[in-house]
Amino acid sequence: MQNNAKKILVAMHLGNGYGSQPGAWRMPGVDPESFTNFDVMVKQAQAAERGKLHFLFFPDGPASERDIETQPPGPNIDVMMTMAAIARETKRIGLVATGSTTFNEPFNLARHFKALDVMSHGRAGWNAVTSSTDDTAAYYGKRIPSSEERYGRAHEMIQLMQALWGSWGKDAWVHNKENSEFTKKGAINAINLQGEYVGASGPLYVPPSAQGQPVIVHGGGSPNAHELAGRFANVVVGATFTIDDARAQRKAFRDAAKRYSRDPDEIKFFAGLMTTIAKDRRTALDRRIQLTESNFPERVAYLQRMLGIPLDINRLNEPLNQAQLTNARPSPYDPRSAHALKIAKEGWSLRDIIAHGVIDYHPVIVGPGVEAADHMQEWFEAGAVDGFWITPDVNADGIDAFVDEVVPILQQRGLFHEDYEGETFRANLGVPDQYGIDPRIMNHKNK
Amino acid sequence: MQNNAKKILVAMHLGNGYGSQPGAWRMPGVDPESFTNFDVMVKQAQAAERGKLHFLFFPDGPASERDIETQPPGPNIDVMMTMAAIARETKRIGLVATGSTTFNEPFNLARHFKALDVMSHGRAGWNAVTSSTDDTAAYYGKRIPSSEERYGRAHEMIQLMQALWGSWGKDAWVHNKENSEFTKKGAINAINLQGEYVGASGPLYVPPSAQGQPVIVHGGGSPNAHELAGRFANVVVGATFTIDDARAQRKAFRDAAKRYSRDPDEIKFFAGLMTTIAKDRRTALDRRIQLTESNFPERVAYLQRMLGIPLDINRLNEPLNQAQLTNARPSPYDPRSAHALKIAKEGWSLRDIIAHGVIDYHPVIVGPGVEAADHMQEWFEAGAVDGFWITPDVNADGIDAFVDEVVPILQQRGLFHEDYEGETFRANLGVPDQYGIDPRIMNHKNK
Ligand SMILES: Cc1cc2nc3c(=O)[nH]c(=O)nc-3n(C[C@H](O)[C@H](O)[C@H](O)COP(=O)(O)O)c2cc1C
Ligand SMILES: Cc1cc2nc3c(=O)[nH]c(=O)nc-3n(C[C@H](O)[C@H](O)[C@H](O)COP(=O)(O)O)c2cc1C
Repeated sequence: MQNNAKKILVAMHLGNGYGSQPGAWRMPGVDPESFTNFDVMVKQAQAAERGKLHFLFFPDGPASERDIETQPPGPNIDVMMTMAAIARETKRIGLVATGSTTFNEPFNLARHFKALDVMSHGRAGWNAVTSSTDDTAAYYGKRIPSSEERYGRAHEMIQLMQALWGSWGKDAWVHNKENSEFTKKGAINAINLQGEYVGASGPLYVPPSAQGQPVIVHGGGSPNAHELAGRFANVVVGATFTIDDARAQRKAFRDAAKRYSRDPDEIKFFAGLMTTIAKDRRTALDRRIQLTESNFPERVAYLQRMLGIPLDINRLNEPLNQAQLTNARPSPYDPRSAHALKIAKEGWSLRDIIAHGVIDYHPVIVGPGVEAADHMQEWFEAGAVDGFWITPDVNADGIDAFVDEVVPILQQRGLFHEDYEGETFRANLGVPDQYGIDPRIMNHKNK
Repeated sequence: MQNNAKKILVAMHLGNGYGSQPGAWRMPGVDPESFTNFDVMVKQAQAAERGKLHFLFFPDGPASERDIETQPPGPNIDVMMTMAAIARETKRIGLVATGSTTFNEPFNLARHFKALDVMSHGRAGWNAVTSSTDDTAAYYGKRIPSSEERYGRAHEMIQLMQALWGSWGKDAWVHNKENSEFTKKGAINAINLQGEYVGASGPLYVPPSAQGQPVIVHGGGSPNAHELAGRFANVVVGATFTIDDARAQRKAFRDAAKRYSRDPDEIKFFAGLMTTIAKDRRTALDRRIQLTESNFPERVAYLQRMLGIPLDINRLNEPLNQAQLTNARPSPYDPRSAHALKIAKEGWSLRDIIAHGVIDYHPVIVGPGVEAADHMQEWFEAGAVDGFWITPDVNADGIDAFVDEVVPILQQRGLFHEDYEGETFRANLGVPDQYGIDPRIMNHKNK
């Protein structure tokens, strides 16, 4: 046990309350109303907290990419309201919700997140993303702005929100009944910032939380994302399929942090990992087949393009033949292709190849907990990540499976903490408290 | 007991968690951190629910009007996050939060309120106000738009939000595991509305709540407010000092509802009432003196103008003399002046006149519970109101005082329900469930 060594950070993605796989809502034991059942979502949060996971993560975005007649919408019903419910019924786990920098007013969003931070006693994080799809813009009767505008606004939004968060300084709130001093004289500052895209006078009348203010998180991977996250974020939730790519991404974010005079260890890079945990590979594959069978025709079609060979939807039970394996050429346009071919070469049937999750958004573990632990250890020890954000197949039992089957192995290997280090999200991440805009980045002008 | 007769509706204003009076935060037994203590706010909500009150009301707006060095900000820390906390720890009481139609995007606000409605099982209400002060606009780095623009946008906002709320029809959400039917084919509709001020494509991916969608509430009293509330609202929270004025306001809202082809009984007019309840008038006055003494100099100065006579701040202990009473002329510009003079003529000292709350935002009861009950009965039986929204002096014991000292008297007189009529806010208000835009107002174009 290497108890003083750096440990893996782990987040849990709760999403719409069902889980990531299209059939999750129909699984036995799953409340088909999980989408609107806050008891269910609170219970899932508590399960993740039982495993000492560092934070819950709610992405957010358009609900249009799914066939709503047979599947639930992808996003959570309302990430802020759900987090408020969860905040009151958990104690230590961090609470990261996504909020668009493109389609929110800084004052409104700053207030919601600071209130969440205060009500959770210092456990909030804001995933500050730029909205990038026309579907999202249409919710607002608008078009997606250019990349330049989106990121220009994002830089201003984060600065403004942090300034608003800092408008009551660390020691501003005295609330001394004896001498009638509610706040310290002169300690509450208007901010009066007006940028090119957004402005606010402040002050925001919310005192500091136990960690000062919410943690900035960013989901993205482009050069613009490096710049934004390097400047402001303590957490990056990434999407990456290989150790080499993850290492390069992590380095890009750390280098960007240095450019803004920050300590690169203050920015933690999280790779995604999807899980179907079961007692053995076969049981896990069967579970995934049950969850995704309706999507098989489109997945077979897609796999053909990934491998550059024709595949027969009527031969799902058969492994690829020697000719197919010989002719297969992993597509250079899809970073998952090499892994898909590796699985195919292991001799699995076409159905099982797909059930390995070779066409999912992140690397997928389909098997016993030790396979997840091995994957995490390998990436972590290769310097590719600081942590992982886990997306279970079915929340109802997939969170418990991770907590019961993966966490203990990581702990035994000295790779995961035995308990929360502190009371706040920042304490548990190992990043400093913050009050207002980080002075180190003040001298760096918006580009 | 007239058990089938129409009864008084009652709401409780929780505000910043301390109470309406500037000294509330310093009273014995008050947690000086109530502003950020969600346990405190939940407890207050539960106290109001114990009294079977119809709804909780959170106004919202700029925090700049108070001296923050000695007094808490007026508004709640964050009305939506607070309501989310309260929703999970109450069962029947309605939850009305204020949201500006001027400074919110319809999709964001629609989603928060619908989520609140769903998580509370049909108890949400939206106080749809236009923001009217420069202080509020400055939070957004903006100027206050013209009245025409503000109300033009407000009409569009409410229509858009209701359309978004209705985008999943009443029976749209099937979630039938057997046949894989998540939503009914064709029952989810995009709305694709684009107005002059705001637009949204929809659909909003939130199913109907137990009452369909949130109740529209409006706080206002101008002709613009009559038009907006008459068209959309089921509840109006008003500000009025006399029965005659209240009756006229109520009629104006009811007449406006008729102009939009609605049943005027579907719009409920609430007058404000502030309370300092104690065992007798003297005890109540002393409590109010303790709560407000720091404001006495400015109040005396203001009372001079209300009565048109000089008053001496050094003679707080003495009643007005005969010459003062004879020369007093109630100001025609302040509707509270006549009542102030009436109290003065009863022979109270200058300090006690002010302690009667003659310069507060609403009529004030300073005395035993029966005085509040009498006031409410008189106004109600005069056809001036459908109900009252109560603002206690100190939340920590003022809510309990209302529930224990006023509610039972109203119940004995057959003027207040013995228990909630139904499970939803609409059921308890006696207004119909709603799904989307009310078809009766569809033919009335925006002006
Ligand atoms: C792991 C990850 C998570 C993301 N989460 C969200 C999200 O929840 N909501 C959202 O609108 N965008 C999300 N994004 C999208 C990014 O914010 C960004 O819009 C997208 O990557 C396009 O980036 P670009 O404009 O820099 O090319 C995420 C991106 C990544 C890589
Ligand atoms: C009883 C009452 C409650 C109100 N509550 C709020 C509120 O919580 N927040 C707010 O911004 N405005 C509130 N208003 C203000 C109105 O929305 C409106 O802006 C103001 O009355 C000016 O109206 P006018 O533009 O129609 O003249 C309230 C008004 C009244 C009478």
